[in-house]
Order: sequence, then structure tokens, then C-alpha cells
Amino acid sequence: MRALYWDGRKLRFLLSFSAPDADSTALIKVHLAGICATDLQIFRGYMGFTGVPGHEFVGSVEAGPSEIIGRRVVGEINFGCGECAACRHDLARHCASRRVMGILDAHGAFAEYVSVPVKNLHIVPENVGDEEAVFVEPLAAAFEILTQVQPQPQDEVLVLGDGKLGSLCAQVLHLAGAKVSAIGKHRDKLALLDKVGVRTLLLENWQPDRFDIVIEATGSSSGFELALSAVRPRGTLVLKSTIAGKHEVSLAPVVINEIKVIGSRCGPFPPALAALAAKQISVTPLIEKIYNLAEGVLAVSHAGKPGARKILLRP
Amino acid sequence: MRALYWDGRKLRFLLSFSAPDADSTALIKVHLAGICATDLQIFRGYMGFTGVPGHEFVGSVEAGPSEIIGRRVVGEINFGCGECAACRHDLARHCASRRVMGILDAHGAFAEYVSVPVKNLHIVPENVGDEEAVFVEPLAAAFEILTQVQPQPQDEVLVLGDGKLGSLCAQVLHLAGAKVSAIGKHRDKLALLDKVGVRTLLLENWQPDRFDIVIEATGSSSGFELALSAVRPRGTLVLKSTIAGKHEVSLAPVVINEIKVIGSRCGPFPPALAALAAKQISVTPLIEKIYNLAEGVLAVSHAGKPGARKILLRP
Repeated sequence: MRALYWDGRKLRFLLSFSAPDADSTALIKVHLAGICATDLQIFRGYMGFTGVPGHEFVGSVEAGPSEIIGRRVVGEINFGCGECAACRHDLARHCASRRVMGILDAHGAFAEYVSVPVKNLHIVPENVGDEEAVFVEPLAAAFEILTQVQPQPQDEVLVLGDGKLGSLCAQVLHLAGAKVSAIGKHRDKLALLDKVGVRTLLLENWQPDRFDIVIEATGSSSGFELALSAVRPRGTLVLKSTIAGKHEVSLAPVVINEIKVIGSRCGPFPPALAALAAKQISVTPLIEKIYNLAEGVLAVSHAGKPGARKILLRP
Repeated sequence: MRALYWDGRKLRFLLSFSAPDADSTALIKVHLAGICATDLQIFRGYMGFTGVPGHEFVGSVEAGPSEIIGRRVVGEINFGCGECAACRHDLARHCASRRVMGILDAHGAFAEYVSVPVKNLHIVPENVGDEEAVFVEPLAAAFEILTQVQPQPQDEVLVLGDGKLGSLCAQVLHLAGAKVSAIGKHRDKLALLDKVGVRTLLLENWQPDRFDIVIEATGSSSGFELALSAVRPRGTLVLKSTIAGKHEVSLAPVVINEIKVIGSRCGPFPPALAALAAKQISVTPLIEKIYNLAEGVLAVSHAGKPGARKILLRP
């Protein structure tokens, strides 16, 4: 089959990469796959991954259990061992021996077919189109925040970053009833949030202020210190950006202001699918361009341009 | 009166420093004062403080409201405005316009007398000696952890650091019923914790392991990464060390393992006094030497030696 392949140094388009077996796993024909910030980090060496990248996808089941053949699905990206304490507590994403699609020891979705454990799959409701369903993985990551922090109605929440993840986080917290403000560098991206009722502000107009809960979703290492300065004493800072490598930071404000810093990664798919089915979250305006898989190397380069919205691949 | 004075560059012993007024504040005759890691950081420029340092003390009321004249007292070190939201919620330690004894805009206790707002004072029970009471401030900081994290009986807790603060944190968590392990570099310091029933381990014998809750109390910037590596996914890391300046750290493990990092600073005095009165916490073995105030400059130099236990000053 055709696939993009990362050999640790160079991303290449291969015409004949052997398709995965469908065993206890299902074989999914990929309809659409999304390029995300983690993919771009991988192409800078993050996780030392080699293989077919890509972990945001929607597709249909080509081989696997008969009751799901032909169904449209999305898939959770952490393949747990199924037996450890983490897996038994429905936390396969923290299984110590997990494989992660397109990130760690498992090929991903930038290919015609991808192999996914059946238990990781979720059926996509009929009224959710492929161009929405491909956002389930990052939207689930935004919903993860609600499993870690329970915003109170009077809480002032700030989302830092107007990229894809920032937009999804702001919408999810707004949906949860919090008073949400979003800060970013791009007037056009913030405009999407204005439409759904989130208060927005350009970074250049930012006046120092303190919030009960701050979500760091800038994807840049400089975001941490700005985020820290915007949390009230004893407030909460949720880190959504996975920044590879070491950075110069001062942790003294965390201690002095007794701030709670919570790392937040992958999340639950069901609320993300339900919110899309109920048309409560707007994702398609986040799409910048859909490329054919054969143009994948170009697509990745486009995705890496500052300010790019979501780039999708269609095999 | 006699006092130690930090002018921002040099610590000096002054024979005639004007004594503070007792106004809405009480004038305390200092019996004993403790030198702590924050003091040592101040002498390296932390907080840009100038004046009489020192914030750990026990003394007796020389002037103030008649009902407390002559009583032995300890004092909370954050002087709040009394009017803001933080102060109204009994969180003067987070008042934005607070002064802090010996740290920010208020003279401290390395002197014959110190001036403290009456509302900050706590009477010392008769069965708690001066050499115990002088530990109330750092012991309260250890009790602060219990206001932020509720260890469950099955939780495995690791305390990193066998210094004064580490020892107090380990004892408080042990008292709270947690299964506590402590790691440090000094066999003699760990021996004190062995005696009270805490499991101890020399750092050189440390095998990577994961704990539900980790307390970082090493006082060194390198402690953060070791602490982070010892927290289980979705576990809690409490930061007790206030490290001035910026350091090279990787925050990626916080996100990947969804760790909750909680800064923890000053704490409540009443449980600390109660635990000392009930003889539940052992503090006097932590004392290395008591110096006269006139030898204060020498005492500070002693306190800065690696491995030094608590150095006290007697005016």
C-alpha cells in the first residue's frame, strides 16, 4: 500500500509499503488523517520514532470482527498491554508497556491502511462527517481537562494559544459552563472563538491579569512562563503542550503562589464524539487544506508553517 | 538594640539598631531564631531584601495587648493587608500587598526584638520548649501539604531530601497515616527518620521506582527531575523547595504522565503547635548548634555548609 514513512531523518512517500495484518486488531481503510504538532515534533526527533507516522484519523473497517466490518471508526491511539494496573483502570494511555500509534512502536495513519486493536475503536455517528470525525483525537485531548479539573461556574478560565488545540480547549471549557477567555496572536483564528461566545484578546493587547484556571496550549516553550504569570495564587495551570527537550524556566512562582500545575494529554473519545454529534463544537473552520497522501511530504511542510491551521491527508 | 542586618551585599552585626515600635503590632523579645534555606538564598540576592533577616522565631511579648504581655509566642510570617479577598479567606500568605518578615519589606527576627501584627501570633503551650517552638514555622510549612493533598492509606509517599524540611515533611506525612519512604544523602540524618518509623534509603542505593505522591524537599534545582521521575503516571509531585533563578528542566514528562505538580509554601501554625504539644514530631535532634546573635555572621556561614543541620541564634 501507499504510505508516508519516517526513517528518523527523512519523511518519504512509499508506493509499496506492506499493509498491516488484521488479527486481534482491525484493519482500517483510512479516509482522512490529520497532521498535528506532535507529528512535527517527531520529525525533529521526538520519541526517536521511525515508521509510518500519524495518529489522528477516521476510516472504515476493512477487516476484523464481522459486526464492525464496513463501519466508520475513529481509534484511541494508546495500545495498552490490557493486563497491568493502568490498563485495568481504563488508563491504557498510561500503560508502561504501551505502544502508541505513529509515535511509539506502532505504525500510524499516514497510509492507506492502519492496524488498530478492536478495543480502541469507536463507531462514528452517521451525522458526524469525516472532516469532523478526524478531529476526535485532539478534541478528546481537550475533554481530558474536564476529567482533571472541575471548573466552577464563577471560575475565570484563560486559554493561551489560538491554534487547533487551544481552540478545541476553549470550546470544551465554554461548553462546560466556564467563563472562558482566549488569547492568541491571530485575529482570524480568534474570530472562530468569538462566534461561539468565547471572550478573545490579541496577545499584543494583553494586560497582566490573574485567572482561576489557565490552559497552556501555545505549543511553545515560552508559553509556560506567560501562563504561570496569569494564574492566581492557589490557582490551576493545565499544560497541554508537549514540548520536547529542556528549557530555562523558573519554578519559584509555582511554590511561592502554591500553583497546581497539571499535565494533560490524551482523553476520552465518547464525550468528543457526542459533542460532535450534537453539533456543540465547531471543528471544520479549523481545516486549512486537504492534501492527497502522495503530497504528504509537502503537506507536512505546510503544517509546519507558523499560523497554519489543520492540514489533512486523504489516502 | 543588637541585630543582624543585610544591606543587599553584606551581612553585619549592629550594636545599635533602632527597635521596632509596638503599635497594632506586638513587640516580641526574641528567645531563639532559626536560620533556614530561604535566608541563605536571600544572602545570594533572592527577593532583593535588605534589612534584618530571619522569620523562624520564638519569643515573649514585651509590648502589645495586655492579655498577651509576657506570653511565649510564635508568629506567622506573612503580614497581609487584612482587606483583600485572599486575607478575607484566611490566606494572608497570598495577599498581593503582603509584607513578609525578614523576606519582603519587614524586618525579621535575627535581632533582640521583632515587631509582629498581633493577629499573626500564636501562644506556645507550656510543655513546648523554646528549642521545639522555634521549629513551628517550618513544621507548619510541612503541615501545609495536608491542606493540598489528602494521602490515602494505601498511597506510597516518597520524600526526597533528608534536610530539615524533608525530615519534617516525612514525619508529618507519617503522622497522617501515609506509607512514607525518605531518600537522602546522609546516613545520620536518615537515622532520625528510621527511629520514628519512616522507611529510609540512601540516594546512592536508589533504584528507579514510582510513587503515588512525591515531596521534593532537596532544596536543589537537580531535585526536580529526580522527583518527576519518581512519580507514577497521574501521581502528585509536591514542590517544597523554593529555588531562585531559572533552571534547565524538561516539562514533557509532566504532560506525558499527566502529573499534578503542586507548589507548597507556608502553612497553618495550629496543627504544628498541637503536634509538638502532643510530642508527635521530633525536632530537637535537628539542631546542630546554637550561636549568640553577636556570632550571627559566623552562624550563617555554618548554616550554609553542606549537610549542616539547623543553626539557631540566641539574642
